[in-house]
Amino acid sequence: MKRYEQLAELLAADIRTGRLAPGTRLPSIRTITAQHGLSASTAFKAYYQLEEKGLVRAQTRSGYYVTALAAQQLAAPARGAADGKPGKASARAAATVAQRPDVSELVFSVLGAAQEPGMVPLGSAFASPGLFPLQRLGKSLARTSRFLQGPDTVASLPRGDEALRRQIAQRYLGMGMAQPAEELIVTHGALEALNLCLAAVAQPGDLIAVESPGFYASLQALERLKMKALEIPVHPQDGLDLAALADALKRRPVKACWFMTSFQNPTGASLPLEKKKALVALLASHDIPLIEDDVYAELYFGSRGFLPAKAFDRKGLVMHCSSFSKTLAPGYRVGWVSPGRFGQQIERLRLMTTLSASLPAQLAVADYLQYGGYDKHLRKLRHAMESQLSSLLAALARHFPAGVRVSRPAGGYFVWVEFAEGFDALALHQAALAQGISVAPGPIFSARRNFRHCLRLNYGYPWSDGYEAAMQTLGGLARRQSPYR
Amino acid sequence: MKRYEQLAELLAADIRTGRLAPGTRLPSIRTITAQHGLSASTAFKAYYQLEEKGLVRAQTRSGYYVTALAAQQLAAPARGAADGKPGKASARAAATVAQRPDVSELVFSVLGAAQEPGMVPLGSAFASPGLFPLQRLGKSLARTSRFLQGPDTVASLPRGDEALRRQIAQRYLGMGMAQPAEELIVTHGALEALNLCLAAVAQPGDLIAVESPGFYASLQALERLKMKALEIPVHPQDGLDLAALADALKRRPVKACWFMTSFQNPTGASLPLEKKKALVALLASHDIPLIEDDVYAELYFGSRGFLPAKAFDRKGLVMHCSSFSKTLAPGYRVGWVSPGRFGQQIERLRLMTTLSASLPAQLAVADYLQYGGYDKHLRKLRHAMESQLSSLLAALARHFPAGVRVSRPAGGYFVWVEFAEGFDALALHQAALAQGISVAPGPIFSARRNFRHCLRLNYGYPWSDGYEAAMQTLGGLARRQSPYR
Repeated sequence: MKRYEQLAELLAADIRTGRLAPGTRLPSIRTITAQHGLSASTAFKAYYQLEEKGLVRAQTRSGYYVTALAAQQLAAPARGAADGKPGKASARAAATVAQRPDVSELVFSVLGAAQEPGMVPLGSAFASPGLFPLQRLGKSLARTSRFLQGPDTVASLPRGDEALRRQIAQRYLGMGMAQPAEELIVTHGALEALNLCLAAVAQPGDLIAVESPGFYASLQALERLKMKALEIPVHPQDGLDLAALADALKRRPVKACWFMTSFQNPTGASLPLEKKKALVALLASHDIPLIEDDVYAELYFGSRGFLPAKAFDRKGLVMHCSSFSKTLAPGYRVGWVSPGRFGQQIERLRLMTTLSASLPAQLAVADYLQYGGYDKHLRKLRHAMESQLSSLLAALARHFPAGVRVSRPAGGYFVWVEFAEGFDALALHQAALAQGISVAPGPIFSARRNFRHCLRLNYGYPWSDGYEAAMQTLGGLARRQSPYR
Repeated sequence: MKRYEQLAELLAADIRTGRLAPGTRLPSIRTITAQHGLSASTAFKAYYQLEEKGLVRAQTRSGYYVTALAAQQLAAPARGAADGKPGKASARAAATVAQRPDVSELVFSVLGAAQEPGMVPLGSAFASPGLFPLQRLGKSLARTSRFLQGPDTVASLPRGDEALRRQIAQRYLGMGMAQPAEELIVTHGALEALNLCLAAVAQPGDLIAVESPGFYASLQALERLKMKALEIPVHPQDGLDLAALADALKRRPVKACWFMTSFQNPTGASLPLEKKKALVALLASHDIPLIEDDVYAELYFGSRGFLPAKAFDRKGLVMHCSSFSKTLAPGYRVGWVSPGRFGQQIERLRLMTTLSASLPAQLAVADYLQYGGYDKHLRKLRHAMESQLSSLLAALARHFPAGVRVSRPAGGYFVWVEFAEGFDALALHQAALAQGISVAPGPIFSARRNFRHCLRLNYGYPWSDGYEAAMQTLGGLARRQSPYR
């Protein structure tokens, strides 16, 4: 019996006897390694084994807990450990249907690990808050606090603070798009906007086209709302496979689409303008709504951004969702949607679920947009991201096995790394965690847990020796796997 | 043809010809009365007639809009106007099942009207923001803005700001209840908490026990999540009919309960302590979760508050939801839930839908709770509410028809008014609106649109001559209806 198996058996025994009752937090990795004189890697392996057996569950950012099912599972006949290999990784040429996305457990486990303090956050979904003008934004917050002192302004605002909606409408105008302030709905972050849009246009059982690989939140939303995912392949460079989509729309009753058209998460791909136009025309011909997630829109490299698909929307079918979380105000939870023809449904769903966005955050962001120098900040931020991308790509070239393919995004802060077929990114993820490095393995971006040979890496943090070392470690770990040994 | 019918016909013609296209806002009541030399009451009647025909739709706080369906409806054979009398009003002795709550349209129309500027807000769901310490809270917001300037604090917080959760836990302790800060989940207002709890414990098609009359948001949530409502009668004084609930639980597969146990909306009723204990025991014996909405808890009259049902929960079945929106910080959207055994499900649903509560609002409320003098403010607020209740009850006695029954709440800011059987509160609501007075008619508090002879009145605003006059007008309008003529 290996050491990690011994540790797992020890803990399982404590669970069996009730010394570790359901709901109890397992000792932290640090504690357990100190107690037993084991490496972190061994401790992680033991915890993973317990998790695979369903005895413990990783809870986001707070560790492992004994599950409620542990007692009854231990009473039942022993289950073999899962083989941990759900489905062979392979890019598919056509759209594929998953009856029931079930990606949440894996996502929560991966994201939880990425947020552990001290981890090198290559698997993180966020950029470094140090890149944001938090001080200037704090001043806007302090300044606008006085507007919250009169009874007039506290009345609940149906679609959000008017000044904020005007500022957002102006930014659309700057791109040459007229999105009237009256139509915009300010939301509690883009995530709320996206979820509201989906609930506004589709019902349980409906089939929704999503990207593959795609943002796990779309898969989680489908899971939560009991909808089905139709996965449309995404090319890491120019995005969505339109032919596959067109083909799928002919054959299947797609109710809505949820796509990220620029700087896609996880690939970094962007649809060229002509493809966006064609996408809107295709959906218009089928009368199918598009939920367009455009949260990275402002993080373009070069001199100008990319128009969203919304710019070509003539039928009001496109719901354009974005936020300030990725560019200015993480934690403030200020997003919005330009809802096309679905404004009333979205507004009503919001009134029923969260009522309105938080007022202090809205006023602060509105003030900052007007006086804080957002465009200057964005120029700086874009330069930082672009330089961090160069560093990451250089490190990849230095340390990763030859033949590994990397996407070349034109904005955002993610690259998509494809190893040889047969490579196991989940195993790399686990091995990397034990070394204090988080990565985002491919299967969390697919309802069918495809892309097992792929990784998403984050370059949203200032480059440092620590990053360089982490990339070297990752490259070394990758080389230990069979395709490269 | 009456004048309002003429006006309705005129507008319908404009819709038919496309002069008023789908999505167009109808002229405001003020504009149309000026244009046509009509009374507001006539204009309202015309708009209601168009709404009944489905040609226009009231949009919350912004007026009437031509519906998308208008064109095709006008093309189809003319529909007769609805008779406007859905179901006879009568209190029921046993629980009743509504297959499909469908209360939203009516709720939005009533609430929209209540928020019109200049209305006497007797139908409002809110208290006067002038009663809240907005200046002191604004200072807390300005003060804590500097904590938002370092990168450390912007990391996403799984269950909410720790200082805030500690403050909330301390307030529980003050009531003699131990609700550990680690277990609490800060939400985007109580409404999010309640909706998350419901989604965490029940699925589409499930049967949920709600109060009748009850808070319309619970009915809207069931409607949205495609669950069924089992309406349990509420007595305006001591609340929920426990015998009816016990009986229903024996006969029907109730999946969860959503109750307001103190200062219930709309009746103001509170379950006595022994009834709360019995409720928890009853649900525990059936292993049924309780979503306890306790947002008015701090607004008790007298020297001490009422313990919630949660205080007697030994099995973790009670999810106790509350917020600061009714007592301190409207518009900030800071609520919470003490989730019992459902913490993980609720936390995950939240991570998938809104991620976390807005940080500036959380920090400001936490600071205020620690340094702002919340208890002193609450004492003042309770006295104000109690005195406003006295004024309202006195005005009711002076101006309303004899025999009208009124609840006597021990806290909160709503009274429930029962007219004689056959009284039409929807008609009163419409007549009152035309006089610039909003009320909340009984049917918005029932999935079956019962309680047509009842009203909810709000005493959350400082009493004034305007209120006195409004009560006199309401009394006069009531006397014109057949039971009192």
